[in-house]
Amino acid sequence: MSLAGKEFESLKPFFEPKSIALIGASNNPGKPSGRPLHALINKGYKGKIYPVNPKYDSIFGIKCYPHLADIPGPVDLAVISVPAAGVYDALEQCVEKGIKAAVIFSSGFAETGPEGRLAQARITELARNSGLRLCGPNCLGVVNTRNGVMASFAFIVDIPDVDPRTVGFVTQSGAFGALIYAQALYSGVGLNYFVSVGNEADLEFADFLGYMAQDNNTRVLGGYLEGAKDGPKLRRVAEVAARLGKPIMIMKVGRSSAGARAASSHTGSLAGEDRIYDAFFKQTGIIRIDGPEELIAFVPMILAGRLPKGRNTALLTVSGGAGVTLADLSERLGLIISPLSESARSKMKAALPFFASAQNPIDLTSQYVTNPEMLVACFNALLEEDNIDIILGNFDLREPYGVEIARQVIDIYRSTDKTIVVCPWVFPGQDEGDGVRELRRAGVPVLLDTAQAVRALAHLVDYADFLRKRKSEEYRVPSISIQNYDSIRDLIKGKGTLSEGESKSLLAKFGIPVTRGGLAGSADEAVELARQIGYPVALKVDSPDIPHKTEAGAVFLNLASADEVRKAYAAILQNAGDYKPDARINGVLVQEMLPEGIEVIIGVTKDPVFGPTIMFGLGGIFVEVLKDVSFRVAPLSRGDALDMIKEIKGYQVLKGVRGRPPADIEALTSVIMKISTLATALKDQVKELDINPLVVYPEGKGVKVADAMVVIKE
Amino acid sequence: MSLAGKEFESLKPFFEPKSIALIGASNNPGKPSGRPLHALINKGYKGKIYPVNPKYDSIFGIKCYPHLADIPGPVDLAVISVPAAGVYDALEQCVEKGIKAAVIFSSGFAETGPEGRLAQARITELARNSGLRLCGPNCLGVVNTRNGVMASFAFIVDIPDVDPRTVGFVTQSGAFGALIYAQALYSGVGLNYFVSVGNEADLEFADFLGYMAQDNNTRVLGGYLEGAKDGPKLRRVAEVAARLGKPIMIMKVGRSSAGARAASSHTGSLAGEDRIYDAFFKQTGIIRIDGPEELIAFVPMILAGRLPKGRNTALLTVSGGAGVTLADLSERLGLIISPLSESARSKMKAALPFFASAQNPIDLTSQYVTNPEMLVACFNALLEEDNIDIILGNFDLREPYGVEIARQVIDIYRSTDKTIVVCPWVFPGQDEGDGVRELRRAGVPVLLDTAQAVRALAHLVDYADFLRKRKSEEYRVPSISIQNYDSIRDLIKGKGTLSEGESKSLLAKFGIPVTRGGLAGSADEAVELARQIGYPVALKVDSPDIPHKTEAGAVFLNLASADEVRKAYAAILQNAGDYKPDARINGVLVQEMLPEGIEVIIGVTKDPVFGPTIMFGLGGIFVEVLKDVSFRVAPLSRGDALDMIKEIKGYQVLKGVRGRPPADIEALTSVIMKISTLATALKDQVKELDINPLVVYPEGKGVKVADAMVVIKE
Repeated sequence: MSLAGKEFESLKPFFEPKSIALIGASNNPGKPSGRPLHALINKGYKGKIYPVNPKYDSIFGIKCYPHLADIPGPVDLAVISVPAAGVYDALEQCVEKGIKAAVIFSSGFAETGPEGRLAQARITELARNSGLRLCGPNCLGVVNTRNGVMASFAFIVDIPDVDPRTVGFVTQSGAFGALIYAQALYSGVGLNYFVSVGNEADLEFADFLGYMAQDNNTRVLGGYLEGAKDGPKLRRVAEVAARLGKPIMIMKVGRSSAGARAASSHTGSLAGEDRIYDAFFKQTGIIRIDGPEELIAFVPMILAGRLPKGRNTALLTVSGGAGVTLADLSERLGLIISPLSESARSKMKAALPFFASAQNPIDLTSQYVTNPEMLVACFNALLEEDNIDIILGNFDLREPYGVEIARQVIDIYRSTDKTIVVCPWVFPGQDEGDGVRELRRAGVPVLLDTAQAVRALAHLVDYADFLRKRKSEEYRVPSISIQNYDSIRDLIKGKGTLSEGESKSLLAKFGIPVTRGGLAGSADEAVELARQIGYPVALKVDSPDIPHKTEAGAVFLNLASADEVRKAYAAILQNAGDYKPDARINGVLVQEMLPEGIEVIIGVTKDPVFGPTIMFGLGGIFVEVLKDVSFRVAPLSRGDALDMIKEIKGYQVLKGVRGRPPADIEALTSVIMKISTLATALKDQVKELDINPLVVYPEGKGVKVADAMVVIKE
Repeated sequence: MSLAGKEFESLKPFFEPKSIALIGASNNPGKPSGRPLHALINKGYKGKIYPVNPKYDSIFGIKCYPHLADIPGPVDLAVISVPAAGVYDALEQCVEKGIKAAVIFSSGFAETGPEGRLAQARITELARNSGLRLCGPNCLGVVNTRNGVMASFAFIVDIPDVDPRTVGFVTQSGAFGALIYAQALYSGVGLNYFVSVGNEADLEFADFLGYMAQDNNTRVLGGYLEGAKDGPKLRRVAEVAARLGKPIMIMKVGRSSAGARAASSHTGSLAGEDRIYDAFFKQTGIIRIDGPEELIAFVPMILAGRLPKGRNTALLTVSGGAGVTLADLSERLGLIISPLSESARSKMKAALPFFASAQNPIDLTSQYVTNPEMLVACFNALLEEDNIDIILGNFDLREPYGVEIARQVIDIYRSTDKTIVVCPWVFPGQDEGDGVRELRRAGVPVLLDTAQAVRALAHLVDYADFLRKRKSEEYRVPSISIQNYDSIRDLIKGKGTLSEGESKSLLAKFGIPVTRGGLAGSADEAVELARQIGYPVALKVDSPDIPHKTEAGAVFLNLASADEVRKAYAAILQNAGDYKPDARINGVLVQEMLPEGIEVIIGVTKDPVFGPTIMFGLGGIFVEVLKDVSFRVAPLSRGDALDMIKEIKGYQVLKGVRGRPPADIEALTSVIMKISTLATALKDQVKELDINPLVVYPEGKGVKVADAMVVIKE
């Protein structure tokens, strides 16, 4: 899976236009029609600016053109703020003028109902036919802070920019996206690009993220997402970002039913199942966040350029209580507050007062106030600890000793490659002080909110983990190729629901172990099959129309003799006929009786966003009562398959409980991988697949499909 | 359960002293010995101040006494900042002088090791014998902002106070408690009392909380807790606070293993099991918080005096994205984002632009900027909705329209008794604006952090729920009285582990249904019992020394004839003897065979903090793999018992899955209540109790104890 270098090249005119036409421009800098023009001038945009409006000769001292066609030179980008009714016409003029990109602010399209959807479909078609790329409609537009392209009417165009500008941000909510933008800037985190995608009539969330991923100025990608349109495209973008080591943080909303309902009514898009987003994000290394604070705290950590080698964290505090609180939160978020070596502890003890704690978390106590050099001694002891990857310092940097301590911390920071973050005590509304400012200037990550600092560290550790895993063989997604495609196609061609026998045949073609047995067309054939298999055997009707075979009285187990087989054969046909007179009956399956094992379920569904998606869970109450299942989007790596298995609570059962031996995880993983191959190779044919159950035997003893049902697209 | 009105009266001198002696006072206002004196003067304390130190004639212009005995008048409170070695001596002088209360700052006691523990035990004994009450040692002391009692050396004594002062705060961590104090004040939340309890040599966390609960100036109680010393006392305090409608918010740390380890090393106290704290807090209405932000956000909500009638919440936003995000968080925290009536929606639609959303969450869209009156129309429509208890408004109140809108919101607020909170857009470091200030002045709750606002609402709803439940019959804890105490005492007297037969006899005395049957001393007796019970029967060895009867080969099930009973009888005696030759064997239990049902487990353990604690869970994997159990501290109300049952994930199974009928929850609840009675009445005798399993039958069919084991304190 790779991203064509040119996939997002057509977006360049949105970000690097040499000239911009503002169609429907006005002289009111508070209105959508006037704000972009005002901001372009204000932010020093160096390209050509062409307001277009027959009502004005000039706006803010810039010549205004009555029509687009009147503009003398070429135009790269059009910004359209005319009412919805005039948009199509404006776009046609853009095409005529040879413009390559247009931002459409106007509301009144798909978000308003059937008529609006129709109007939107027309502009989508125009874009597809002409090659004119669109951002919007119903959007706040595009901002590039690096060159003053303020093709937006959001209030954010008036906010002073902040350096360094390293974040690219894409949002499906205009107003909320603008809030996030403002919050980031006022928190000292600079953005270079901002795009509000609106209704996504042409270009969508993933397109803009893809453009930014390949952009050299962008180090971190952020997004606010209600529902992706094209899951595989987003996966390609995530892959490019991972290759370039650029983290993607997405605030995906709609977790709750009310949230999902609101998101879907807000964008009119299909939200998809939230749990599948979770799985997809894990799989692709996208960091899921709950709010902008997490992005804002993460940026200084990633810009510091120190990915932690592990999750072992030392907490260096001046209060026992702060240490305990931070330890709780750290462990909840997956960091490890590891014990320190005897050597480190004795070095610290030598520097600390007798009532301080040289454990981890380290508590310097309030004596730090009178003897701040203790901090330096403890820092130095921690630097020598191989087992410590991360140091979080939470202490007071106010005067009289703030600047002095800060300078020593800077020296410490420069002498190590461990991940360090400092959380100084700064109270709401109080000045952070010169010591803190000195740290910031020297590039030491400083975060005032300790909880967000821990969260940022947890994200950083997870991201570093993901990058390491990504490079391992285990997490390489194998290329999908199947040898016997023709015979497979023949098997499923034109079928709807496959019978158990047909489903198992299909699984067997992918190398998945199924029960031994065969299809009998007569009692004699059944007896002969039973003889070959060996008694006892099971008999079941084979019919695509009777999925609930037991309910139909069409399953007989533990048949021990030819006589019993004959009787069962007759009874099955009788019962099946009574149960559903018009059922198509292929015959009667004669199968080996499976010994007991752990029953698991493997399923494939077609997610509307992500396509074929694999589900895994334990049978019985785990699935029925606890909904204890895991998902991954196909195709999977072996590591993904193992992660799915380990992720469910029922994994304990597979590992062996009550003295039972561990299950054959290897064989189970292999089946999941084969299902991934099947689901990927046949993604256009298979609508649904359920193995229920797959029986898993102890280590080395394999697995076997006991029952299965596949539904083929007709 | 009631709190003696005088239980905490002896603490009054800490908060309302007419005179304070500062033993070991110095003239350095930056040191523990000098800061309180300096702060007493600075904060205008009106009582008499007596510095005691032979080195000075006067400090800060106040006469200094060489010895305590030299002080002419009576002294209410002593503040001791001499080194640990001098503390005992100082306390003896306090007793001699007739002082009633002492704050001990000095470190060097239980927190430092065996020697320190010994020194601390001595001062505890002195306190117990003399009636002198102690706060500390190793503490930051006591603050009363209402009268300038600054018996603390924390930096907080120098922070300007904030009105209204309504919060009483007690902390087991000095430095961290001071941080919380400072954060609250700088966030505009005023405290009246602050106590750092230190090592709790005499008075403890719950004592100070109890004092504040009864104090008229205190509306909200807050605490930082690492481990309670006396669970029942804390329960009494919670009961008083609930009766007075004063919420208690406790930041209980030590959830994680590292956190618990650190907490225990920090205070040297036994942390107890965190899950039992959770249960205890639910039971007593104590609101558990993760950080001071939650307390800070909650205070304005509770001071507004509007407890919501339910959890139906309307979100009034100016951004679809903000609405979705708030809806997600609200539902996650237990609020309900309920659909609106057709009438409300049409009223809103009339005021809103066509592309806005009149659903809940309501999205005014960016048109709000040009037409802010829409907000008022929507607010008014919501006020008429009976189904809406809470309105959270999240909008921009900046000029030019901020003040105007704020005034209208104030009118709306005054016209309703619904719970309302406004979360205006204010960016980090930016002025909140006149509109917001106007809201605050009018008493409208304003919270800048939307996530904390939702959290505060969730706490408020839970608290209102708790207060309602508390008043209902269902949640009244019955008084415990048992009729047949003598026969019960005879049954368990001098025993250690009870056999199954003895355990069931004990349970039966509390009215708990156990298997029918009896103890046989011979094969003939066994056959006779079987005849009386009716075949089939089960036979088991009855021995306190063989808890694992099946493993010993000493259980025979489904015996259908006298012959089988005789054979089983002989085999049980044989096998039990082989398994454990020295086991005490009471005989062989002959019992009815129980039909299948849902197996649950009920246990009693003695928690070191809370005393007898009931555990409930489903048998099998629910307990063994998923640890899916609930706890409550005895004694329980019926409502508590029902809550325990409903709280576990396995409750689904009891409600009936796969077409099975619902279980007899009524009978199950009744058994849990009887176990609560047993555990409370015999709290000094019963060390441990396990019913495993109790078989629960369908509704109306009751329950029965299949096996049980009770351990009596010897």
